[in-house]
Amino acid sequence: MISEKMKVYTQNNSAIRAMFEEGRRLAAIHGAENVYDFSLGNPNVPAPIQVQEAMIDILQTENPVAVHGYMNNAGYEEVRAKIAEHLNQLHQTHFHEHNILMTVGAAGGLNVILKTLLNPGEEVITFAPFFGEYRNYAANYDAKLVVVSPNTETFQPNLKEFEEKITAKTKAVIINSPNNPTGVVYSEETIQQLSAILNKKQAEFGTDIYLISDEPYRELVYDGVFVPYLTKYYANTIVGYSYSKSLSLPGERIGYLVIPDEAADSENMMEAAKIANRILGYVNAPSLMQLAVARCLDSQTDVSYYNRNRELLYNRLLEMGFTCIKPEGAFYLFVKSPVEDEHQFCEAAKKYNILIVPGSSFGCPGFVRISYCVAYETIQNSLPKFQELAKEYF
Amino acid sequence: MISEKMKVYTQNNSAIRAMFEEGRRLAAIHGAENVYDFSLGNPNVPAPIQVQEAMIDILQTENPVAVHGYMNNAGYEEVRAKIAEHLNQLHQTHFHEHNILMTVGAAGGLNVILKTLLNPGEEVITFAPFFGEYRNYAANYDAKLVVVSPNTETFQPNLKEFEEKITAKTKAVIINSPNNPTGVVYSEETIQQLSAILNKKQAEFGTDIYLISDEPYRELVYDGVFVPYLTKYYANTIVGYSYSKSLSLPGERIGYLVIPDEAADSENMMEAAKIANRILGYVNAPSLMQLAVARCLDSQTDVSYYNRNRELLYNRLLEMGFTCIKPEGAFYLFVKSPVEDEHQFCEAAKKYNILIVPGSSFGCPGFVRISYCVAYETIQNSLPKFQELAKEYF
Repeated sequence: MISEKMKVYTQNNSAIRAMFEEGRRLAAIHGAENVYDFSLGNPNVPAPIQVQEAMIDILQTENPVAVHGYMNNAGYEEVRAKIAEHLNQLHQTHFHEHNILMTVGAAGGLNVILKTLLNPGEEVITFAPFFGEYRNYAANYDAKLVVVSPNTETFQPNLKEFEEKITAKTKAVIINSPNNPTGVVYSEETIQQLSAILNKKQAEFGTDIYLISDEPYRELVYDGVFVPYLTKYYANTIVGYSYSKSLSLPGERIGYLVIPDEAADSENMMEAAKIANRILGYVNAPSLMQLAVARCLDSQTDVSYYNRNRELLYNRLLEMGFTCIKPEGAFYLFVKSPVEDEHQFCEAAKKYNILIVPGSSFGCPGFVRISYCVAYETIQNSLPKFQELAKEYF
Repeated sequence: MISEKMKVYTQNNSAIRAMFEEGRRLAAIHGAENVYDFSLGNPNVPAPIQVQEAMIDILQTENPVAVHGYMNNAGYEEVRAKIAEHLNQLHQTHFHEHNILMTVGAAGGLNVILKTLLNPGEEVITFAPFFGEYRNYAANYDAKLVVVSPNTETFQPNLKEFEEKITAKTKAVIINSPNNPTGVVYSEETIQQLSAILNKKQAEFGTDIYLISDEPYRELVYDGVFVPYLTKYYANTIVGYSYSKSLSLPGERIGYLVIPDEAADSENMMEAAKIANRILGYVNAPSLMQLAVARCLDSQTDVSYYNRNRELLYNRLLEMGFTCIKPEGAFYLFVKSPVEDEHQFCEAAKKYNILIVPGSSFGCPGFVRISYCVAYETIQNSLPKFQELAKEYF
């Protein structure tokens, strides 16, 4: 018999993943070209050619014992040093090799840092709408996820409610900007206010509150929007990064954590995070991928591809009568459901072979997430279907 | 501040890993060629050429969006089907794609299945000496590791004590054959007796007790020794496999779990294990590596290389006066410490730049583990140093 906790999970399986499976089922029936699967953040833009070239070159020229072998649980020293230097160039920070821990994607990184920090019963605050897995990650360490309710006009963080929800038990705050599912980017002013609140509350409670910045979408921004680098605004910041979106490598599970010297207890934290990386069973981030991304730090996915998708889908959905904030980053539209229960709307969309995810999965009912990291043609071909769907409501 | 649990870990960091770091420190001082690092199971035999060729071919010919993208959390269907078929050919089993879950190495697989099964306070039994991480993996899910004391003559499992230690709270038993750190292989008769005990105790307590077979060393056996495939002996068996040793890919983190149809609650278990794979932050096993190993199921590491190391080191150490059981598998010698406290012996070895791991790390004080998955020359060059070390005692 499986554990009691896992029984609950199997009964409430991730709506996003269930949708992914549903898409494959529908594709098998109707043909993949007739299913409009907007359910998952699985980039349709191939990895930059430099990534392929780097992997092949490493495989052809380097010693396989070193390429595929164990290394420090934190990752290859030279990889970590290169990433630190690259961040310093981009953000005028002062990181070193010892501030970087290579992880099994951002999901691995978040689990490592939460295991490192959390005692049972402690609280992790996040802002709705949020990536639903945060709830599971916090639960892995018997912590409680405290959710700040969404501002459904702007989808900027509700800082007043945030301040009220910080308690002596608050150990961490997770923010995600550019945001999944809204595409909103938190402005520098927002970050400054949020930092001021955290500093005030740390002083008030005499605690350390760590701000965990989950930023797999950092590079996916449009119209030149500025994304502040949070370690420069708040000392107790940990950054979780992933190459899943920026280099289109989601299946490879490669990312890193930044634990700056400025963070309280940073040396112990890095030491504990290395151990957490080991004992959670990751052991280390996949070795070939570590070496490959280190050679491709200046490579970028083709943001113009996503931008073209964004413009097309956003503009056409608005013309059809839908309501949606224009995303400044990531590759999602967070659209207001035309009926109160967005599950009904998602079911209605399914009749047209359109797969979208209920906002409830992100702690924000009444909305739906549409992933536009698909082929441009998928969006083009889906538009008549969206039009038919719209006619049911407007 | 880091969590209370992690504080304890940072204070008692893994002796094996600490040794690995020590080896690198000594190498920097004395030169790598003058340090005899027998501390880690990091294979010195390169991955078979077929693995490199498969990776390069995949990178050159397949669609990168598919190669590096998300797939089912359990892994690519075609990879799982090929592995099931391969196991069936080898062991006359009857597995299907749905019995295989691709994991981030064996460590990832063990964590997935333990999270799937364990309620807080439940017990996991293992046999000393054992891979020390089992204790941490059980603790990750607030379970208790119950250790059966070693038979230090044969290092075969002490089945009488095992039977006594099974309680109504026993949820799982982890065995590891070929064994790290002893190299012992459990005979078919042993497996039959162990299965009979488990069946009897399941009936007595009315519980399911899952036998988890951790077998990264399955293919690393010498002198044609037979390694039974446990699902054929006991219905509630889960197999955890890794390509770390068999294909020399430890840094790549690629392995799988087998959850047979015969296991109680197997359908729910697989469903829960997929979710555990996702929410523990692995998400899926690294994608390129999944595709690569599926093309190399018939490839093997060069066991003769390890065998040559085994023969040389084993025979010479015995000549010098050391006591050790001759390993039938894996790539470790488990040598009796000539002094009661083996930590003293490890410290003495360090004077000669010989790095070996205290048996206490494996729940078996009074012994030391010597990893012989190193270059043959390392063993040759270390022998005069071992001789000097021996002279301190014999």
